[in-house]
Amino acid sequence: MTRSELISLIKERKSFLCVGLDTDPNKLPEHLKGQPDAVFKFNRAIIDATIDYCVAYKPNLAFYESQGIEGLIQLKKTLDYLRTLNKPVFTIADAKRGDIGNTSQQYAKAFLDPQGDFAFDSMTIAPYMGADSVTPFTVYEGKWVILLALTSNKGAFDFQYIENKENGNRLFETVLETSKQWGTPENMMYVVGATKADQLAQIRKIVPDSFLLVPGVGAQGGSLEEVCKYGLNKDCGLLVNSSRGIIYASNGEDFAERAGEEARKLQQQMAEYLK
Amino acid sequence: MTRSELISLIKERKSFLCVGLDTDPNKLPEHLKGQPDAVFKFNRAIIDATIDYCVAYKPNLAFYESQGIEGLIQLKKTLDYLRTLNKPVFTIADAKRGDIGNTSQQYAKAFLDPQGDFAFDSMTIAPYMGADSVTPFTVYEGKWVILLALTSNKGAFDFQYIENKENGNRLFETVLETSKQWGTPENMMYVVGATKADQLAQIRKIVPDSFLLVPGVGAQGGSLEEVCKYGLNKDCGLLVNSSRGIIYASNGEDFAERAGEEARKLQQQMAEYLK
Repeated sequence: MTRSELISLIKERKSFLCVGLDTDPNKLPEHLKGQPDAVFKFNRAIIDATIDYCVAYKPNLAFYESQGIEGLIQLKKTLDYLRTLNKPVFTIADAKRGDIGNTSQQYAKAFLDPQGDFAFDSMTIAPYMGADSVTPFTVYEGKWVILLALTSNKGAFDFQYIENKENGNRLFETVLETSKQWGTPENMMYVVGATKADQLAQIRKIVPDSFLLVPGVGAQGGSLEEVCKYGLNKDCGLLVNSSRGIIYASNGEDFAERAGEEARKLQQQMAEYLK
Repeated sequence: MTRSELISLIKERKSFLCVGLDTDPNKLPEHLKGQPDAVFKFNRAIIDATIDYCVAYKPNLAFYESQGIEGLIQLKKTLDYLRTLNKPVFTIADAKRGDIGNTSQQYAKAFLDPQGDFAFDSMTIAPYMGADSVTPFTVYEGKWVILLALTSNKGAFDFQYIENKENGNRLFETVLETSKQWGTPENMMYVVGATKADQLAQIRKIVPDSFLLVPGVGAQGGSLEEVCKYGLNKDCGLLVNSSRGIIYASNGEDFAERAGEEARKLQQQMAEYLK
């Protein structure tokens, strides 16, 4: 999905919501537990209930890999299902990969190649290994790298705020600045933790045109208002993720209905901010 | 595998060689290409030919994920095969994962849980997200985190050498120093690129007792002599990886025999350094 297609979709649905499909088999509603394809059935119901209110789905691969081969089959079925729908949606492999150049090429093939089992529109990448670990993900037409800049977890304080002796820039700022040589706002986005909304203004100075993927609204404590205040740009420029707040809104038989309600609430707030 | 078991294995085989099973289906010998289970058959032959000369195998997951579900089945078959052998060997999931705490728990389950499809002894982790992204991997008994410190690729220069304004430490040194609070030499190793052998002396000052996983001897240009000179400690403390130099020593029908010869050459050099 190209940048202009994504912007059109956001305008059409009046939403920049991303639903995090971090589906943990231990947290499924009782009536689904133990059924064949339980994870896929759960995801399908969540998708059906939320797709009119969101523009993106982001399965975190850890939740599928932890179930071994069977988990990855559930992931493939979920992706295949999204393709059968007559509704466009942006897909994000939350994979946080990154390796030396020839190996990153293999990861890019794994998650961005349209012929592959896991053909996403984009994937998240960790920056530690630098340029050649990131650029192989920018070569697929209409596909995206989403580079970790500032994350929303406690551990973000261990390294991401370290100030560079040369220029005083913090590591996440250096990552943003340096990576502008590796891609463009047409093929590179950034992960920016929502609990750091006060940092968004500074980040917007460095990457004014780029889309930012903001995790952590909801369960991780971020405020949508703050994120919009400092993060929105003229093209929206935001994808705001909610995972647990939506997919686990209820663990009863009404889980999908309740997920839809939570997604709709966020969509309605987003529609206001988009005006 | 515990630290003392690993040290015993190194003494017994007179080797600290790790064979990188970065098996690319496009680089298989012609007679295997297109066969069912071709990747597994290749790996099995490589393992049979090299296991007496090495102490560890390190599949890089990118090469399996790029083949989708089928690739992951080949990986599982390879691991299952290793378990049927009556020869202990240390296994490394070269995965370079890392995510917020509750998600890293899922990755740990995926690759370290003895009940899972992919039950490795250890896995490589990227440090960018800090403490809570790393500590979930240290809770499995006898299993290991292998944290990226200094990598062997060109992109290593983008961020890993940034000097901290506060104390002048380079980022990779801060990663080493900080992570000592997260694990011990019993459950944490470090990736240190061999092409930076001159840095090993400094790294040894920070982590004198830890095992170092050194990629990049061979195709990536590192020198075994340099690595041993600066990296060996009283317990050996090194795992030196070779991938392409061994597994693609020949692309004919003699590929396994040639791989065995290359592994044996490295083992014989290592036996000298271990004296």
